[in-house]
Amino acid sequence: MRKVAVVGAGMTPFAEHFALGIKDLLPMAYADAASSVDKGIDKNDLQAAWFGAMGTTDGFPSGILADSLGLPDIPVTRIENSCATGNDAVRNALYGIASGAFDVALVMGADKLRETASKDMLWEWEATSRDMAWDYPLGVVAPAGFALHVSRYLHESPATREHMAMVAVKNHHQGVNNPKARLRFEITMEQALSAPTVVTPFGLYDCAPQSDGAAALILAAEDVVDRYTDRPVWVRGVGLGLDSVMHQHKSDMTTFPATVRAAKQAFTMAGMTPADVDVAEVHDFFTGVELISYEDLGFANRFEGYKLLEAGDTAVGGSMPINPSGGLKSKGHPPGATGVAQCVELFDQLRGTAINQVDGARVGLAHNIGGPTAVAAVTILEGP
Amino acid sequence: MRKVAVVGAGMTPFAEHFALGIKDLLPMAYADAASSVDKGIDKNDLQAAWFGAMGTTDGFPSGILADSLGLPDIPVTRIENSCATGNDAVRNALYGIASGAFDVALVMGADKLRETASKDMLWEWEATSRDMAWDYPLGVVAPAGFALHVSRYLHESPATREHMAMVAVKNHHQGVNNPKARLRFEITMEQALSAPTVVTPFGLYDCAPQSDGAAALILAAEDVVDRYTDRPVWVRGVGLGLDSVMHQHKSDMTTFPATVRAAKQAFTMAGMTPADVDVAEVHDFFTGVELISYEDLGFANRFEGYKLLEAGDTAVGGSMPINPSGGLKSKGHPPGATGVAQCVELFDQLRGTAINQVDGARVGLAHNIGGPTAVAAVTILEGP
Repeated sequence: MRKVAVVGAGMTPFAEHFALGIKDLLPMAYADAASSVDKGIDKNDLQAAWFGAMGTTDGFPSGILADSLGLPDIPVTRIENSCATGNDAVRNALYGIASGAFDVALVMGADKLRETASKDMLWEWEATSRDMAWDYPLGVVAPAGFALHVSRYLHESPATREHMAMVAVKNHHQGVNNPKARLRFEITMEQALSAPTVVTPFGLYDCAPQSDGAAALILAAEDVVDRYTDRPVWVRGVGLGLDSVMHQHKSDMTTFPATVRAAKQAFTMAGMTPADVDVAEVHDFFTGVELISYEDLGFANRFEGYKLLEAGDTAVGGSMPINPSGGLKSKGHPPGATGVAQCVELFDQLRGTAINQVDGARVGLAHNIGGPTAVAAVTILEGP
Repeated sequence: MRKVAVVGAGMTPFAEHFALGIKDLLPMAYADAASSVDKGIDKNDLQAAWFGAMGTTDGFPSGILADSLGLPDIPVTRIENSCATGNDAVRNALYGIASGAFDVALVMGADKLRETASKDMLWEWEATSRDMAWDYPLGVVAPAGFALHVSRYLHESPATREHMAMVAVKNHHQGVNNPKARLRFEITMEQALSAPTVVTPFGLYDCAPQSDGAAALILAAEDVVDRYTDRPVWVRGVGLGLDSVMHQHKSDMTTFPATVRAAKQAFTMAGMTPADVDVAEVHDFFTGVELISYEDLGFANRFEGYKLLEAGDTAVGGSMPINPSGGLKSKGHPPGATGVAQCVELFDQLRGTAINQVDGARVGLAHNIGGPTAVAAVTILEGP
């Protein structure tokens, strides 16, 4: 397969962008990505685009991307795969370039959740996250669904709510210096543990904020990569795993098979193991999900994820830094943008220019899990 | 680029499937496709899937496909691109196989419009078809949007409402023998012309029925194709064209630039011209759109599409048969399924087994245009 590199990466701040629409956020993120291309890029170099959008807030996603960026002459595909939407857009763009159909492609992700043109769109957000005949009428929306998993995990593993709080404290700390993050403040263990309950076992600080934002990557085939940069970041592995949609069909609530499948595909493609990863951006829409994902991604043995937190391994400066950007917890979570934005952080990390730089990082991993834990994606990048 | 073939193709009837959900329709279409694979196929041979779904009626599309087909171990990507959704799913699956990532992949398309779990989902159907800040509040829904184009076309070209009626009469006639079509009855010119007005210049018989249904294609790389069949149908060209979302930005209402762009891409990839096409399935959600598309696809000169109808060229038996399946007009239009179902018809045509067989057909073209005429896709297939 022809090799594909990221040659530019950028994003808007993730925030409550009440005054901005998707039409504003897309050009902002693209401009940020284009400005990161070392040797510059002309918009006419783009031959195709993939757009990760979980929702349709402003209207027809593909057309709005083409319109708002002034790109009428290239194909634009909208990808939707719940919270794995952004990573799956990267994955499909990779295939497009690797096939030889295109040399240079744009990947964007964007969503707007903090404001809705109509409350009726709530339907769509719910529908892309669960089964509408069963889970939805029973009230199994995202916090409730993930709470079922994490509650059982806390019951079966030695992990406690304190370990979840350690995830929150770590990610808030790491997000403080990130100008693109929404919640840029430290919290204490006590604040995390005494916060109001959202749904047992999640307190307020166990939950990441839904947000508005966009992110962009510019991908190029190995044949043309040196037109754009001498320090490309290679896409080494992509994986997309599925699992049962309905909770009554999940045989073990303490692990996410979708993540295990996605990781296996991505590591196999990259010819790597979890030990090769130097830095990772891991889905932490709820703190307990980051904890379980340590194990599903192969960074910890089963039911031993908490040990990484106790040892400080997953903080920047530790042996396996997780979410140096601040994660969804601090940055916020516009689902279409999130997977793309994780790759923006890894792009900086693997070129040695990140805000919370992980020393000597050469391999980075991005991970999301979404829907009713029915889909996960893993993207593995390697530095120049 | 590695060559990719269709080795199996099938679909459900398009109908008002009030008693069936997406979970029922997907396995029905897959079973029909699997049964068409000459040497048989095991579900475990499938390595990846692409699912074209414009809407999310039953819930999370990718997960529901994996669940309802019993395919938890393969990646499933949902593609949405308005009425071009099905063709764009084929396009992305092609890249996945051509890249070398997969040898065998499933493409499905499905939608359910004749029943909604909640009226709130109307938002989503509208949002994937237009701009929500401008066209939607102004009432420019699908019939109204296309009516603006066709009205201007009738004003500028010699074509008349009679020519639109000729499209309706032709496609109803061709659908009569198709057991998968929804409207299996003949109509007369007089009936078409005297039908109640939906929106000027469209009478009832100028409009195709929104419907429920699913369709499936099994794609294989050239390296493995002879495991499945000795008469593969090759995917020779794919194209996806965009255009401005809002009608006030369209500089000429009498042509669809999205179609012109998609056709150019697909013909270039195939190394063919419109003269190479023996049979085509062309978007006829409204009769006038089929007429304009004759020109945009290169089958007729500008403003001369009506001549094909007057000469009977686009009827089965003519020199350029269009919509031998009955088209959207007779079959019905579940948008995610439509582009895939057009390829099902072409699969049969190019293997000489279609119901309204076009003698000696070797090259077939499928076309859809959608959203506010802001996206179109063209797929070119070639027989064994």
